[in-house]
Amino acid sequence: MNKNPNTEKAKMSTDRKQASGKKIVVALGGNAILQSHQSGTYEEQIANVKKAAKEIVKIIRAGYRVAMTHGNGPQIGNLYIQNSLAGEAVPPMPLDACSAQSQGMIGYFIQQEMLNELSKHNIDLPVISLVTQVQVKASDPAFKNPEKPIGPFHNQKEAELLMQKTSLVMKEDSRKRWRRVVPSPEPIHIVEKEVIKSNIEQGYLVVASGGGGIPVIKKKDGLMGVEAVIDKDRSACRMGIEINADILLILTDVDRVALNFNTPKQKWIDRMILKDAKKYLAQGHFKEGSMKPKIQACIDFLENGGEKSIIGTLFSAYSAIQGKSGTTITKEL
Amino acid sequence: MNKNPNTEKAKMSTDRKQASGKKIVVALGGNAILQSHQSGTYEEQIANVKKAAKEIVKIIRAGYRVAMTHGNGPQIGNLYIQNSLAGEAVPPMPLDACSAQSQGMIGYFIQQEMLNELSKHNIDLPVISLVTQVQVKASDPAFKNPEKPIGPFHNQKEAELLMQKTSLVMKEDSRKRWRRVVPSPEPIHIVEKEVIKSNIEQGYLVVASGGGGIPVIKKKDGLMGVEAVIDKDRSACRMGIEINADILLILTDVDRVALNFNTPKQKWIDRMILKDAKKYLAQGHFKEGSMKPKIQACIDFLENGGEKSIIGTLFSAYSAIQGKSGTTITKEL
Repeated sequence: MNKNPNTEKAKMSTDRKQASGKKIVVALGGNAILQSHQSGTYEEQIANVKKAAKEIVKIIRAGYRVAMTHGNGPQIGNLYIQNSLAGEAVPPMPLDACSAQSQGMIGYFIQQEMLNELSKHNIDLPVISLVTQVQVKASDPAFKNPEKPIGPFHNQKEAELLMQKTSLVMKEDSRKRWRRVVPSPEPIHIVEKEVIKSNIEQGYLVVASGGGGIPVIKKKDGLMGVEAVIDKDRSACRMGIEINADILLILTDVDRVALNFNTPKQKWIDRMILKDAKKYLAQGHFKEGSMKPKIQACIDFLENGGEKSIIGTLFSAYSAIQGKSGTTITKEL
Repeated sequence: MNKNPNTEKAKMSTDRKQASGKKIVVALGGNAILQSHQSGTYEEQIANVKKAAKEIVKIIRAGYRVAMTHGNGPQIGNLYIQNSLAGEAVPPMPLDACSAQSQGMIGYFIQQEMLNELSKHNIDLPVISLVTQVQVKASDPAFKNPEKPIGPFHNQKEAELLMQKTSLVMKEDSRKRWRRVVPSPEPIHIVEKEVIKSNIEQGYLVVASGGGGIPVIKKKDGLMGVEAVIDKDRSACRMGIEINADILLILTDVDRVALNFNTPKQKWIDRMILKDAKKYLAQGHFKEGSMKPKIQACIDFLENGGEKSIIGTLFSAYSAIQGKSGTTITKEL
């Protein structure tokens, strides 16, 4: 690898630009950074981001141009719990402010560990995390029907009490656990689109639209934050389209996409063509709020100029790019 | 004002650059965004940033090129309280992560309200907040002698209990109130210096080094966050020097600098020359951790190529630039 021409190029580049290869948007799942079996300490999250950075630097050394985004599900859940539990002492912040906080924190983790891993390979490439607002429609049906679960689980009693005391909406899941649900509106516009593009054109490694972006609506007197959480895969797809990326790489905590998931007929998929992905989606193979939005994002990306969509795990990102792991979706075989 | 040539220039600029006038670093005090008499709700902080944005847009319309930074004292204090009170449920994050969270949140507030105010004047200027790491020395004496108070006040009993139970250092203030103290090391290097500079060269309105920057030290295997808070005025000065700014404008919650503050001989100062500022500083006219670091930042800025340093209130920033309010410090009269 050390003789890789693109590494050399990056190494010797005086203006510190990325190589001129294919453009990839890498989307790190928030639950890959803070994994469900972990309590979510600082050390755990840094360690996961370190592992991800090793993989992503392999991709950069292979000559790809990388832009990054990330989820924030578990992290914003924790911020929401902290805001609730400390509510007597500190005025709780709404979800747009918490989303901005998570962009700062996760952006910092990624920025630091990417810089550290890059410097191990003598690649002198600036990494930059941008606070990103993403516009949604005030008329989005999601505001009337909140469906995205967030924060801690409650039993029915607790949930009913909370709904009496507050304006929170709680829903019961398939395992009879109650959780707050919030709107997850469609991203229609990345407010900071131009600065994201121009920094990518500068050749920098840009981290943007973290957590799906800070949800804002446009009122007559300007932008205003809203209590919502935007799906990070939808925003990653939008970012990929905006910056004319060739590849959308969604990194999560499952290695591949499966049909008939969790049934005796379960079948892992290595490659899929667009037509089949749409068919399987229609047949309901993919779980709401989990694999379904990922597949939908992959489809939208391919239907809007993308060349390839890939779903894989955080820790095998490079082999996923090579088609050795994960699920690759293309227009044709 | 509508016929201001610079406004017109901004209005008609196709490449969306700021005017080519003097370069100013504007430092918003965290305690001007979350004021001591306020509880610190989302609405209060947004309203304060809105007021600041009105003033800063006046400065931009007058043809100055503005870069911004901000403090985070009260905000990181609140994050620290939330982390402590929710510690049983959510693993508390250390100060570097909280600092990154505050950069995301306050950067978002500034970005949104600056965009809103700019668009009221048909100025199409991108605003961008950058997650910023600031390097400090592991050998900085501040780590042996933490002095920056943070978070809630305690009585002696509580403080002693906390010191027994945890590794926290608590100190008593002049009013017999106990508070956690943390190291406030000297900023030696802005890690994201190059991207800050290049985005300013692009003509964008850049918000960076929020809260003094995320404190990191350099170890053999790379950058690592530390439990510290960097003084935002010192970092603002460093940023001003790095980007060759002409003016450093420190906006806080007092209108002007005073000699013999809070004494019968108190005297407000409108203008000072560098020599006198250094003399008054040496004479101990300026309060530790309050006006002293601001004056020190103003002096350092002028001694490193700056033309003018100004201290004023958030809400009269434009008149301060004009010399109609605040305290202006220059090399010579």
